[in-house]
Amino acid sequence: MRLSRYFLPILKETPKEAEVISHRLMLRAGMIRQESAGIYAWLPLGHRVLDKVCDIIREEQSRAGAIELLMPTIQSADLWRESGRYDDYGKEMLRIKDRHERDMLFGPTNEEMITEIFRGSVRSYKQLPLNLYHIQWKFRDEVRPRFGVYRSREFLMKDAYSFDLDAEGARHAYNRMFVAYLRTYARMGLKAIPMQADTGPIGGDLSHEFIILASTGESQVFCHKDYLDFDTPAEDVNFEDRAELQVLVDRWTDLYAATEEKHDEAAFGALPEAEQLSARGIEVGHIFYFGTKYSAPMRAHVAGPNGQEVPVHMGSYGIGPSRLLAAIIEASHDDKGIIWPEAVAPYKVGLINLKRGDEATDTACEALYEKLSRAGVEVLYDDTDDRPGGKFATMDLIGLPWQLIVGPKGLADGTVELKHRSSGEREILSPDAAVVKLVG
Amino acid sequence: MRLSRYFLPILKETPKEAEVISHRLMLRAGMIRQESAGIYAWLPLGHRVLDKVCDIIREEQSRAGAIELLMPTIQSADLWRESGRYDDYGKEMLRIKDRHERDMLFGPTNEEMITEIFRGSVRSYKQLPLNLYHIQWKFRDEVRPRFGVYRSREFLMKDAYSFDLDAEGARHAYNRMFVAYLRTYARMGLKAIPMQADTGPIGGDLSHEFIILASTGESQVFCHKDYLDFDTPAEDVNFEDRAELQVLVDRWTDLYAATEEKHDEAAFGALPEAEQLSARGIEVGHIFYFGTKYSAPMRAHVAGPNGQEVPVHMGSYGIGPSRLLAAIIEASHDDKGIIWPEAVAPYKVGLINLKRGDEATDTACEALYEKLSRAGVEVLYDDTDDRPGGKFATMDLIGLPWQLIVGPKGLADGTVELKHRSSGEREILSPDAAVVKLVG
Repeated sequence: MRLSRYFLPILKETPKEAEVISHRLMLRAGMIRQESAGIYAWLPLGHRVLDKVCDIIREEQSRAGAIELLMPTIQSADLWRESGRYDDYGKEMLRIKDRHERDMLFGPTNEEMITEIFRGSVRSYKQLPLNLYHIQWKFRDEVRPRFGVYRSREFLMKDAYSFDLDAEGARHAYNRMFVAYLRTYARMGLKAIPMQADTGPIGGDLSHEFIILASTGESQVFCHKDYLDFDTPAEDVNFEDRAELQVLVDRWTDLYAATEEKHDEAAFGALPEAEQLSARGIEVGHIFYFGTKYSAPMRAHVAGPNGQEVPVHMGSYGIGPSRLLAAIIEASHDDKGIIWPEAVAPYKVGLINLKRGDEATDTACEALYEKLSRAGVEVLYDDTDDRPGGKFATMDLIGLPWQLIVGPKGLADGTVELKHRSSGEREILSPDAAVVKLVG
Repeated sequence: MRLSRYFLPILKETPKEAEVISHRLMLRAGMIRQESAGIYAWLPLGHRVLDKVCDIIREEQSRAGAIELLMPTIQSADLWRESGRYDDYGKEMLRIKDRHERDMLFGPTNEEMITEIFRGSVRSYKQLPLNLYHIQWKFRDEVRPRFGVYRSREFLMKDAYSFDLDAEGARHAYNRMFVAYLRTYARMGLKAIPMQADTGPIGGDLSHEFIILASTGESQVFCHKDYLDFDTPAEDVNFEDRAELQVLVDRWTDLYAATEEKHDEAAFGALPEAEQLSARGIEVGHIFYFGTKYSAPMRAHVAGPNGQEVPVHMGSYGIGPSRLLAAIIEASHDDKGIIWPEAVAPYKVGLINLKRGDEATDTACEALYEKLSRAGVEVLYDDTDDRPGGKFATMDLIGLPWQLIVGPKGLADGTVELKHRSSGEREILSPDAAVVKLVG
């Protein structure tokens, strides 16, 4: 993409309303724009990252056996009356009357609707296990939306729902998602620790929040230090193997880890002091096993092997792509701007033309842009008339992993400069060598 | 994907509420499920097609120079008061009050919001031209939603918005989208004819609807017969070349073509009778040039070359992916079910195991599934215990382009059967030859 034809509204000044670094950087880097309190437009650069985050989530959901569908944003209140949650949910639910005065709502989550879809067509245990997920916009009418997309009112959520014949099957479904989540975060460069958590309005008795440690985190969390050194489950983990998954999950849950609501001071205090980790955390995922909480009242039954009808055992598994972007930035930035992990970077390379209008420089840049693009490398080419200083600052701010800097002086020696954003390392090399390095 | 692990709730009976064939087939094929009046869940098979349709739209938007972002679904009423459309829009707009009693709405379109985004950061004509689009869920509270996703209340729309310094530039932006739309439809196997159309609540004085001819179309349309034989603009059309685009657009607009609202009986009647085509049509896209209708009241100004501030000239360009699915089915089906054009088919191949449990058949199917998948061919493998008759009926119903039929009798001769859904042609060949044919 040529910057001269792109829409990247960089802010020169730090917006006053932004309290946390991720919010400030997303506004400054032209990734988002607030449209109403807690409601954001995703500008092109932000939208690209959001897409990449969603793609990683999809790959890991699919690997774990979940199937994608897409439920609507607007739901009927009647569904929520069936489960008994319509009144429970309070003012966070955005309630709507349509032109025929029917009670509708903007879905804050989808347990009811997916249960309705399930009961409409699944009759036998033979169709189980089943895990259905979607990535859709949700709305929660927070009293005080804040921190940008970290706690916004309209937000994107991947929510998966598992259906099993019994508690044992549901436990396997839970473990699949547990492991898929660990892999998802790791691929985005995040170290997330699963912690025992409150179940809130979703309900159930088994639940973990996945927490990123960050000084700007909203909640206090407590865990064993060793979690920081745990390895991520490998790509070839066998999601069908119940025992293998259970061993993995046991390893990731045996040591102490709890959010403030579930914190047990005595158990935590019993750890040797050097192993205690008390820190601020950002919640980036929440998974639940809630058995028959929805299937029983909503009569989502299947015939078991003996022919008898039983309500299915369910779990739900949420991860917020929009919030994840904020978490990634909180975990990866410096005083100059964002430092994107390569897997979610909006572009891999920022190509900087130091002297637009200089024929040799323009020609070299065009050739590099062409070669890299043809090789499938995503390049943002700064072909504008701005001064070099401004170009460097913009590239540092938007945090692309590599900067390829091309100017007349270097070209006179047959060289360009390649800068690695995260390490700050710079290398002088020939244009061809730069292409080889970036493509490889 | 193995059908035994998929979620494909085929309906045996034709749903009574469905009046048109696309609605019936989408329900029967387990593509959609109604959640409320005019509000649908996209089940896995439907969601896959929707994704493919969106991908084609994205590719053609990008080729024409449009840049993707993503605006929220919920908008502030204040924005619409600025443009003067808040009261104009009537009961089709879903109006909402949030917990702080602020007037909000579920966006039926985004002219106001994109104008707000534009004016927030663009100051100079040097940043033009600009065309920003998003693909987002919209809501129009139709009195009588009907025909399934063809006229639903919650629907997906790609809406693009162009910004130019003057009317001449805006005309070029309009032509880019005009040509991009022709290419988009053609890639989906649709023949769409651009027709002069009313501008309705969007406004402006230049507008075309893109119409698919279909007996179930909602509106009567009139055009010159020659349009049916026009070639689609090539992939290498130069979108930067104003003159080249104008020639293309002139060719596609010189002959008579109008929707009922714009129909001129005298002009149409003046055509030789053999060239008159009067038919039912489905609207699958609508583009508008409306000048400064929004930029003037909302003060979206830029400094021109002479330093003077002028309101930008705008257009908007809408295409409904959810409705397009219905249109594709209306245009491509038979009495057995859907016939997907390959570019949007949910899977390219349906692999049918005629005798599950027969070792040779299972082994051959697994090998084919493995080989095709590894080669990047999307396969839906019917590995269920159903009888062959049911499997054939399902595959015909869901309309995958190819059926690869594997049973013990054929395998005894070293053969499998390959059936082409649209032509009905069948071929007996070796498993390896089938793979070569499907991969090639």
